[in-house]
Amino acid sequence: MAHPSHRIRNITGDGSDGWDLFYRAKDLIRQGVAVTELTIGEHDVKTDPAILDAMHGAAKAGATGYASIPGIPELRAAVAERAQRLTGVPTGPENVIVTPGGQAALFAAHQFVGDPGERALHVDPYYPTYPGTIRAAGLVPVAVTARAEAGFEPTEEDLRAVGPGARSLLVNSPNNPTGVIYSDRTLEAIARVAAEHDLWVISDEVYDSQVWEGRHLSPRALPGMAERTLVVGSLSKSHAMTGSRLGWIIGPPEAADLLWDLSTVSNYGIPGFIQEAGVFALAQGPGYETGIAEPFRRRREITQRLLSGQDVVRAAPQRGAMYAMLDVRATGLTGEGFAMRLLDEERIAVLPGESFGQASAGHVRIAMTVEDRAYEDALARIMVLAQRIAAQRAHFPAEIG
Amino acid sequence: MAHPSHRIRNITGDGSDGWDLFYRAKDLIRQGVAVTELTIGEHDVKTDPAILDAMHGAAKAGATGYASIPGIPELRAAVAERAQRLTGVPTGPENVIVTPGGQAALFAAHQFVGDPGERALHVDPYYPTYPGTIRAAGLVPVAVTARAEAGFEPTEEDLRAVGPGARSLLVNSPNNPTGVIYSDRTLEAIARVAAEHDLWVISDEVYDSQVWEGRHLSPRALPGMAERTLVVGSLSKSHAMTGSRLGWIIGPPEAADLLWDLSTVSNYGIPGFIQEAGVFALAQGPGYETGIAEPFRRRREITQRLLSGQDVVRAAPQRGAMYAMLDVRATGLTGEGFAMRLLDEERIAVLPGESFGQASAGHVRIAMTVEDRAYEDALARIMVLAQRIAAQRAHFPAEIG
Repeated sequence: MAHPSHRIRNITGDGSDGWDLFYRAKDLIRQGVAVTELTIGEHDVKTDPAILDAMHGAAKAGATGYASIPGIPELRAAVAERAQRLTGVPTGPENVIVTPGGQAALFAAHQFVGDPGERALHVDPYYPTYPGTIRAAGLVPVAVTARAEAGFEPTEEDLRAVGPGARSLLVNSPNNPTGVIYSDRTLEAIARVAAEHDLWVISDEVYDSQVWEGRHLSPRALPGMAERTLVVGSLSKSHAMTGSRLGWIIGPPEAADLLWDLSTVSNYGIPGFIQEAGVFALAQGPGYETGIAEPFRRRREITQRLLSGQDVVRAAPQRGAMYAMLDVRATGLTGEGFAMRLLDEERIAVLPGESFGQASAGHVRIAMTVEDRAYEDALARIMVLAQRIAAQRAHFPAEIG
Repeated sequence: MAHPSHRIRNITGDGSDGWDLFYRAKDLIRQGVAVTELTIGEHDVKTDPAILDAMHGAAKAGATGYASIPGIPELRAAVAERAQRLTGVPTGPENVIVTPGGQAALFAAHQFVGDPGERALHVDPYYPTYPGTIRAAGLVPVAVTARAEAGFEPTEEDLRAVGPGARSLLVNSPNNPTGVIYSDRTLEAIARVAAEHDLWVISDEVYDSQVWEGRHLSPRALPGMAERTLVVGSLSKSHAMTGSRLGWIIGPPEAADLLWDLSTVSNYGIPGFIQEAGVFALAQGPGYETGIAEPFRRRREITQRLLSGQDVVRAAPQRGAMYAMLDVRATGLTGEGFAMRLLDEERIAVLPGESFGQASAGHVRIAMTVEDRAYEDALARIMVLAQRIAAQRAHFPAEIG
């Protein structure tokens, strides 16, 4: 075929993305093997039938034509109201642009912050689409390592080192894959570095309804930061609506206007019936979101309890989101090596830490997305396997060459 | 706020987009004034309740999670089957990538064909998002004029003049805004120029179900062109599903794979329940599409009949799509001037030809999107107004300064 652009060939980058394990698990499942799937960040409940009925009602009532491109006014208002309630930052519909999902919001935000060839920072470990999203926008991804030893939070020193010349910093707290929530101190450091180097902060807050310990502070709420922060949000995690692809960006009104221009040419609006379902979902209030988060709160407690009963597997501070990032370095295996043995020997599928960057090497990410009893059983077997491998290693240590 | 990127500030371009009239009409309607709306290319029927029921059924049955990113296999297969039936080109699921609407397909196609700073050709007159779509991709839009006198088809000579150094040529036949369908001769010229200058042809064929005269030939069906053509399609026009935002790109399998990478980072898939509704819609077969197109076929006949009864208003060859492009230069007014008088004096809203580029200046575009009787009445009043203005002009010609 004729030559495609450089940028589209460049999206996936050089390295293996470490998802071999994911596809191997899928293959086993297709062959009829019973595999406990702890790979994907998707609720074990489906979207609420009441939300689906609201969607169908809106469609039947005629919301099937072109919808307002930046989002219908009711949805922009509902998203703004929620953001103001959660963060205290004055927010109106003019601050909000609706997108076809959180990933589309990340993409649009990077189109907004910089021009091709410019540098865009993100934190390692990261959600696997981040570097590709940055590259697809023609930007150069630069990773800031958040070390396991520092609780997977980036340090001010490390941030400052990569700040000069960059256009943006992408952060995600509560964090996928680690389950960490950034401390106020870390967020204040982010704000300082952003101001010093004139960076946009792209704050992916799609897990803001899943807070188990401490609090979630949005960088947009820090002094001066509303003018340089784009908050990415979505109903996927808070309302179990992953497949509805309904997200948003919150930022300065001038930013929303420019993002409107981008929406006009990149998607021409989001289905009106889905937007009305979103209005319905948000109208259920904060209690509804707590209910959707509740299973993960319980499973996080199971995780903490099982972890405290042994000393081989360590874990990242598990303060939020639907994941546990387990440190299996005591087994002497890589995250990928451990995950492979787990799949082969226990028929449990998890993702290697290496799939999320180098900072989470030697870890595996557990998505707490099966029902409590199956989750507890799987997690116990993960720990037993880790203990067995670690014990074998103690008895038969690798020879020193 | 902090500085946004150059590219996002550049999407809307310099000029007025000529949509003042559209917003003025909207304002009048909001004030309660009865305005006959002939501006937007949207059916006067809503999406079929049977399609909405299929969508709801799919959602209730559980298609509410993350869906396959390039499109569910059944939809890719159904789109491929339709393309092969309509064009004769062997097409399989591997040639198809599903997008959140035709506009998203246009955006993705331009991300695919070229890198920032490179030139992308399009034809003038054009659908108003085209130049902004190209600019948003960091490409430089270059217009090829398709003159009214040449029936709004580009000539080989004009195409060849702008070919060198360009990466792509965006064409749209059946055409919005003109209603023209390109002749085989024009499409063969496009193929020759594309091969000579190693261009991708991006062929927007969203009106392929609305053919009133002659035939629609896809450039992808011409020798050697399947390797350098990306066809943009959508269910919006063929199935009255504008608000469902379901479109696609058809191209070489390697192109579909690269576009899959882009979809992963730019939208992470399209709602599964909408995709299943799309499968249901396509399963209704060609007769269904004929039925959806039928009102426009009738109104096109009304248009031809009324045009033949006078000699002031001329028209572009109206072979397809849901529009009539009327030449009102005999009134001495611009398209915008005539459209304003039409709104003020007759309460009929149409779009000035100038909104679609310079080649259609002195024209107005009529969307044939109200029921037959109201359409005929409005069109008759448009012609009477044009005749009155032309007659006044004959009696009181502008003084020569």
